[in-house]
Amino acid sequence: MKGINELVSKKPWLGWLLFLVTVVVVFFIGLLASSIMERRAEAVFAYTPQVEHSQWEPRNEIWGKNFPRQYERSLATSDTSFHSKYNGNAFVDMLEEDPRMVVLWAGYGFSKEYNQGRGHYYAIKDIREILRTGAPIDGKESPMPNTCWTCKSPDVPRVMNEVGVAEFYKGSWETRGHQIVNPIGCADCHDADNMNLRITRPALVEAFERQGRDIEEASHQEMRMLVCAQCHVEYYFKGDGKYLTFPWDKGQTVEDMEAYYDEYQFADWTHSISKAPMLKAQHPDYEIFMTGIHGQRGLACADCHMPYRNEGGQKFTDHKIVSPLANVSSTCQVCHREETEELVKNVYERQDKIKSSRDQLETLLVQAHVEAGKAWDLGAIDQEMAAPLDDIRKAQWRWDFVAASHGASFHSPIESARILADGINMAQEARLKLARILAAKGFNEQVPYPDIETKAKAQEYVGLDMEKLNSQKEQFMEEVVPQWIKKAEEREKTYKTKNL
Amino acid sequence: MKGINELVSKKPWLGWLLFLVTVVVVFFIGLLASSIMERRAEAVFAYTPQVEHSQWEPRNEIWGKNFPRQYERSLATSDTSFHSKYNGNAFVDMLEEDPRMVVLWAGYGFSKEYNQGRGHYYAIKDIREILRTGAPIDGKESPMPNTCWTCKSPDVPRVMNEVGVAEFYKGSWETRGHQIVNPIGCADCHDADNMNLRITRPALVEAFERQGRDIEEASHQEMRMLVCAQCHVEYYFKGDGKYLTFPWDKGQTVEDMEAYYDEYQFADWTHSISKAPMLKAQHPDYEIFMTGIHGQRGLACADCHMPYRNEGGQKFTDHKIVSPLANVSSTCQVCHREETEELVKNVYERQDKIKSSRDQLETLLVQAHVEAGKAWDLGAIDQEMAAPLDDIRKAQWRWDFVAASHGASFHSPIESARILADGINMAQEARLKLARILAAKGFNEQVPYPDIETKAKAQEYVGLDMEKLNSQKEQFMEEVVPQWIKKAEEREKTYKTKNL
Repeated sequence: MKGINELVSKKPWLGWLLFLVTVVVVFFIGLLASSIMERRAEAVFAYTPQVEHSQWEPRNEIWGKNFPRQYERSLATSDTSFHSKYNGNAFVDMLEEDPRMVVLWAGYGFSKEYNQGRGHYYAIKDIREILRTGAPIDGKESPMPNTCWTCKSPDVPRVMNEVGVAEFYKGSWETRGHQIVNPIGCADCHDADNMNLRITRPALVEAFERQGRDIEEASHQEMRMLVCAQCHVEYYFKGDGKYLTFPWDKGQTVEDMEAYYDEYQFADWTHSISKAPMLKAQHPDYEIFMTGIHGQRGLACADCHMPYRNEGGQKFTDHKIVSPLANVSSTCQVCHREETEELVKNVYERQDKIKSSRDQLETLLVQAHVEAGKAWDLGAIDQEMAAPLDDIRKAQWRWDFVAASHGASFHSPIESARILADGINMAQEARLKLARILAAKGFNEQVPYPDIETKAKAQEYVGLDMEKLNSQKEQFMEEVVPQWIKKAEEREKTYKTKNL
Repeated sequence: MKGINELVSKKPWLGWLLFLVTVVVVFFIGLLASSIMERRAEAVFAYTPQVEHSQWEPRNEIWGKNFPRQYERSLATSDTSFHSKYNGNAFVDMLEEDPRMVVLWAGYGFSKEYNQGRGHYYAIKDIREILRTGAPIDGKESPMPNTCWTCKSPDVPRVMNEVGVAEFYKGSWETRGHQIVNPIGCADCHDADNMNLRITRPALVEAFERQGRDIEEASHQEMRMLVCAQCHVEYYFKGDGKYLTFPWDKGQTVEDMEAYYDEYQFADWTHSISKAPMLKAQHPDYEIFMTGIHGQRGLACADCHMPYRNEGGQKFTDHKIVSPLANVSSTCQVCHREETEELVKNVYERQDKIKSSRDQLETLLVQAHVEAGKAWDLGAIDQEMAAPLDDIRKAQWRWDFVAASHGASFHSPIESARILADGINMAQEARLKLARILAAKGFNEQVPYPDIETKAKAQEYVGLDMEKLNSQKEQFMEEVVPQWIKKAEEREKTYKTKNL
C-alpha cells in the first residue's frame, strides 16, 4: 500500500483510473449477484404449485400448470421428425412399406392397417382413426374389447378407480369411447401428491405378485423402467372378461412366454389362409431390453429416452420421449466417448444385420402360409397339418416378437438374432413338412409366391374389402367421435381443481 | 528450531531420540535408493544384447537370450489349463465332442482328426501328430502340400529366403519335414535388428497389394494386429503350385469371399456323401474381428491377447498368448469397470447364444448331406442336384466361417449370428429342394438321421479305416520324425551366432 500511495502522490491520474476500474468491477459483481438471485427465484417459482388437483385428474394441461417444462416437452412428442433413418417427417404406413405383413396377419385386424408407432401425444387420435379398431356406429359392436384402451390414456386409471378393474375390461370399445379422451400423460406415471413415480396399471403389479415379487420394493431407478413396463411389454387378453394379463409366469424369454401360451392353448386368432392357431406379439420391449447389455448394466428406459435437460437453470427429465439418437450428446455420450456420427453408425449397423434376418423370416412365413393354404385346397386333413401349423405358429411368434418390440434390434441384438435364427429354422421346418404333404397330394413343386407387391394387392389377396372399411371409418369419425368429445368436455367441467 | 533447542536443553533424552529416528529414516532412504538403482541396472542389463544372430535364426531360445521375459512367457503357451469353460486342462478332441463334424467333412482330412487349437508352443508337435497330415513313410507322398507348413514355424521365412516363395509351397509335406522344426516364435513377427514388428509371410503383403494398399504404411497399432493376421485369416492354396492366397480381392465379408471362390469355381473337396463342391473355412479371425465393436474401436489382437505385464520393474508385452478371460484385470478391465465374474458371464452368454444357432445349423447340414446321398442312391442326376448342392456348399461355408474362426462368437456376435441365420435358411432351402427330388423318386418321407452318436460310429459311417490310419501314424512318428529332428539338429549347428 505504501508503494501505491507514493506512486499516486506522484501521478494523480492513476488514482482516478483505479477508482474507475473498481466501479466497473463492482458493477459486474452486482449483475452476477442479481442473476444468481433471479435464478433462485425462478427455481422457487417453478416448484410452487399453481393448482391443486386430484390423482384422478386425466387432463395433462392441468398437471402441466404446476410443471410447465415437463408438460411442454411432453407435448413435443407430437413431433415426428425423428423416427428413424427409414423415414422422414411422416406417419409411416407399415403395410405399404412391407405388404408381406398383410399376409402374415390374414384374418386379423393388423392386416387392415398397421402404422409405425408415433409419440404418446397421438395415442387417442391414432387409436380412433386406425381401421383395426373398427367403426362402431349406432352402438354397434366394435371388433376391439375395451381392454385395448388400457394403455392409451390417464382416463384409464380414473375409470378403473370408479368402476373397478375387471369391469373396466369388459365389453367392447365403443362403450367407453366418451370416457377415454386424454392422451398418455402425467397421471399415468406420477403421484399427484409428491410427483413420485407410480404404477397405475394393475397388470404389471399382478404379474409381479404371481412371480412372488413385490413391486413396492422397486428402487427409484427400477421405477424409471417399470412405469414404462406397464405398457411396453408382452400381454394378452385373458378369458371372456378380456382381463389384461402378462404371460410371465414361466419367465420372460420368448420361449417362456410361448410355453405359457401353449399351456393355455391360447391363440389370438386363426390364420385365414393356413388355419394356423396364431399368436400376436404385442411389444415385448421391456423383456427384450432386460436381456441386452444396457439392461444388464442397470440402465432404465428413462436414462436414454428421457435424458436430463437444462432450461433456465433448471435440470429436469426431458418428457419428449424419443429415440436416444435424437439426443446423442445427452444419451449415448454420457458413457461412450465417441463421435455422434460413429455412434449412430454403430446402431444402424446392428439394426441392419438383424433386419436382414427378420426380412428372410418374413418371406418364409408368407410362403409357409400360402403352402399350407394349398395343402388344405388339395384335401389335407387336420391330423397331418397339425405339425406344420404348429411350426408356423412358433416361427411367426418369433418374427413378431422381434418385429413388434420397439428397438429390439438395438436393445438386445444378440438375443434378437438368436430368436430370428430359431424362427427361420422353424418356418423352413414347416415348409419341409408341407412339401411332403403337397407331394403326397400330387403337387410336387414350389407353390407360386403370391402377387403382393403393394398393400392394395396384398389386402385384396387376403380378401379384405378396404373400400367398405374406409368409408365406415369415415362415417364413424364424422358422426360418433364428435359426440364422444362433446360428452367428455361436459364431464370434465365437473372435475374439481383449485387455483392457488 | 529455537523451541526444540529449549526443549532438548530441558529433557536431554529427547535429543537422543531425535538422533535415533533420523538414523533409522536415513537407513531406509538408503535402502530405497539402492533398490531404485538396482532396478535401473536390471533395466539396462535386460536390454543389453547377449547374443548376435541373423534375421533368419529360427530357434526361439537364441532370440530368448536377449529377451528372456518375452521368451519365457512364450514358452508358457504350453499351458493348456485355460482354454474355455467347455473343457479343463486338456487337449480337446472336437470330433469326440461333436461327431456331427465327421459327417460334415466326409471325404476330407478334417474328418480323420480335429482338435481344439492349442498354444503356439505345440505348433510343430501337433501338425506332425495329427492324422490329417498323413504318415509319409519311405518318401511316399503325404496328402498335405508343403503350403500347410506356412504358419507353423520361424523356419518358414528362413527356407523361403533360401529357395523362394513359390518354390517353398511346391511339393508335399514330407519333403520339408526336416526343415520345419521350430514352433511359432520370435522370427515370425520381429525384426532382429530393432525388434520392430515385421511381416514375414508374403500372402498378407500380396493380398494388401492386390487391394491397392501398402502394408508398409501400417501404424504400430495396426501392426499389433497384422502380425497375427499373417495366419489368423481365411486363405486357400491356389492352383497346382498350391500358392497360399487370401481370397480378399472382393472384400473380407463371408459373402465377398464366397463370391471370390465361386468365381474361380474353387472347391477344397467334393463331399463324399452329398457330392457337394465344398469350401473349408480356415480361421477368418481377423476378418470377423474387424466387423465387431472392438475392431471398430481400433483395438488390436495384442491389446487383449498380449496385455502388458510387469516383472522386476519391467513393463513388457505378455507373450503367453491366451484367452483374455485368463487376464481380465489387464484386458477387459482396462476399459470396462465391472467385476470379473460379471464380465466373464457376459462373454459366455454371448457365446452360448451364438452356439445355439451354430448347433442347429450343424444338425441341418448332417441331414442335408445324408438326404443328398439318398437322392443320388435313388438315381438323381447332376442337373437336378446342382441347386441343392450349391445351397449345401453355401450353408456349410457359413457354419464353418463361424465355427472355425477363433472367438467369432465374442469378437463379433451380431455378424456371427447373421451369418448363421443365413446358413440355417440355406441348409433348409437345400433340404426343401431335396425333399421334392426324393418325392419325385418315390421317397416322400424324412430320411433317417444316421447313428453318429460317437466319433467312432461317425467315422465308420463315412467309411474311414481308423485302425489303419492310426497305425500308419504311429510308424511315422517312430521312424520318420526322429530322422527329421536329427537332420535339423545337424543343420542348426552350422547357424552363426555370436555371444556378446
